[in-house]
Amino acid sequence: MTYINELDTPCVIIDLNKLNNNIKDMQRFASKNKVTLRPMIKTHKMPQIANMQIKNGAKGITCAKISEAEVMAKAGIKDIFIAYEIVTEDKIKRLLNLSKKVKLSVAVDSKYGVDMLNKYFKKANNNIDVLIEINTGLNRCGLNNLDEIYSLAEHIMNSSNVYIKGIFTHAGNVYGAKDKNEVNDIGKYEGNFIVKIKEYLETKGIKVDTVSTGSTPTAKISGKIKGVNEIRPGNYVFYDAIQHSLGVIDIGSCSLSVLSTVISKPTEKRAVIDAGSKSLGLDKGAHGISKVKGYGIIKKFSDITIERLSEEHGILSLKNSKIKIGDKVEIVPNHACTVVNLFDYAYLTDGEKILDIFRIEARGMVK
Amino acid sequence: MTYINELDTPCVIIDLNKLNNNIKDMQRFASKNKVTLRPMIKTHKMPQIANMQIKNGAKGITCAKISEAEVMAKAGIKDIFIAYEIVTEDKIKRLLNLSKKVKLSVAVDSKYGVDMLNKYFKKANNNIDVLIEINTGLNRCGLNNLDEIYSLAEHIMNSSNVYIKGIFTHAGNVYGAKDKNEVNDIGKYEGNFIVKIKEYLETKGIKVDTVSTGSTPTAKISGKIKGVNEIRPGNYVFYDAIQHSLGVIDIGSCSLSVLSTVISKPTEKRAVIDAGSKSLGLDKGAHGISKVKGYGIIKKFSDITIERLSEEHGILSLKNSKIKIGDKVEIVPNHACTVVNLFDYAYLTDGEKILDIFRIEARGMVK
Repeated sequence: MTYINELDTPCVIIDLNKLNNNIKDMQRFASKNKVTLRPMIKTHKMPQIANMQIKNGAKGITCAKISEAEVMAKAGIKDIFIAYEIVTEDKIKRLLNLSKKVKLSVAVDSKYGVDMLNKYFKKANNNIDVLIEINTGLNRCGLNNLDEIYSLAEHIMNSSNVYIKGIFTHAGNVYGAKDKNEVNDIGKYEGNFIVKIKEYLETKGIKVDTVSTGSTPTAKISGKIKGVNEIRPGNYVFYDAIQHSLGVIDIGSCSLSVLSTVISKPTEKRAVIDAGSKSLGLDKGAHGISKVKGYGIIKKFSDITIERLSEEHGILSLKNSKIKIGDKVEIVPNHACTVVNLFDYAYLTDGEKILDIFRIEARGMVK
Repeated sequence: MTYINELDTPCVIIDLNKLNNNIKDMQRFASKNKVTLRPMIKTHKMPQIANMQIKNGAKGITCAKISEAEVMAKAGIKDIFIAYEIVTEDKIKRLLNLSKKVKLSVAVDSKYGVDMLNKYFKKANNNIDVLIEINTGLNRCGLNNLDEIYSLAEHIMNSSNVYIKGIFTHAGNVYGAKDKNEVNDIGKYEGNFIVKIKEYLETKGIKVDTVSTGSTPTAKISGKIKGVNEIRPGNYVFYDAIQHSLGVIDIGSCSLSVLSTVISKPTEKRAVIDAGSKSLGLDKGAHGISKVKGYGIIKKFSDITIERLSEEHGILSLKNSKIKIGDKVEIVPNHACTVVNLFDYAYLTDGEKILDIFRIEARGMVK
């Protein structure tokens, strides 16, 4: 197997040059602005890409789930932040194990969570660094009330085996932005609000080392705000049609695509490809907000829309395209992070030639 | 590990009694109405469940992709229909291999596809049974013009190594039905239209053995129409919130759920669970048509809505529920078929106790 056009479909292909460029570009921003880059690896789930990020200067990584962190630790990553509330006995015991192997920190946003961590780390005569999650508009996890944040910080200070390392936020609400200006506003709010929290906590005598922000659209905005010292973008390694729709990048920066084959053309206006929701995902916006058109952008066929998906079929609406049964198409998916999680491996290419195959080791790691 | 409440989350649990009841109930219908039951296994992707269906009387199975069929053949299933157009050299060579191990048939809807099959099966001195896909309203693959269908049938008759076994359709458009009456109308149309095609082809001297219909909502409707002799429902083994929203079943018949844990409760009106789009899927209707409310039905908490999903978070909007961090919830997902494809294994239970673990062998088999 040497060339893309010989690959069986559907499959994931990644342009290595574009991937490298994306990694280097974000690292350049971080280095220039003297913020730590701690990329979220839920996007790629591949130890090889995490290691590329580290080699380029990332201090450590961020994971969404402990099972992802376990895969990355096994692959040699030494500094991991789990940006997720771990509140159950089973998982805290796994945290304990992991904390013996890597420099580990974890999210908290409740006294219940702090108490659970403290109970099991104390029992094991060990301790754990935590970052308080701050809500800057996503309205998911995290706190935004100053008194509540201080009260939680104080609670941590009074817990024998849990230590405050800092505060973090993720302005995922940016995926609902109308345009680039709104992206900018959200990024600024993200940075300014979390810095305000840091300053407030410090007036109360609580030291806050890490002040961490950054989705892919906001990383280069909040990352410039004085007081922010860490950014955690994830999607930037690949980018996708949603990032493009937000004006974050040109479509040419997207390094990941799904290769698919036309399997049916029942009418002149309709063709069907072998990639459906089990290959392209149903995302139309990262947090359920619809901005994109259809279910991905077909390269070289800008007049074709991926109108509908069933599980194994993508229904294309055609205008004048001369596409025919047996043709292969390359699709930039709407949301690269969820696509990667549907596949077991990805082909690394130089555009045409297959250079390597990366196993998606942390695929399905939702625990 | 013995009881559901000891399971780490998110995970998939299947109630074995309900699963058995669903399998037996559909088989009873098929036996009583003297139609072959050839269930679509893309729903469960588990050889054990396919074998349960066969043991209960299913004649063979239906697969969406050849990679699924390969998994099922390896597990001992002997009669497989791939309800998908196979049009490329790579995949036809795999078809050839598979055809040496099992009784195999495959979908066609184009002369191009027939020619490709004929080319490689002829070269290998082998032959293959095909079913022509008929479009009864889903407007995906398949033909609905009588002349075109006859022309394709004639083309098959003139192909040395490809044999017509019959015709099939899938009325997936039923997932856009407004109510039970419309489900009924769509099922009747599905059955009547395909029988009309059979009769037309037979007046032209083309013998049509198999006349196959049936989604889960329409199987018991089109399966009663004289002339239809096979049904291929898939989802019925589990059912889900979409089937419930169509009035196909009571929620109590749903055998599959996702177990999840509350990890955050930032306000009295909002809690967050550890299951997001990577565990529950984003489906709101099987072919993109929205009918359900939220992203699944939480058992025992009918006043809670799963309002939004990000990848690893489900955002719950609460009314008066006393749900708290650390609580576990059982969720009937909107679309069971896509949920199963996100997990590596499922726990079989008697409601409370874990009886067995089934590996989801065909998970990710999209090729």
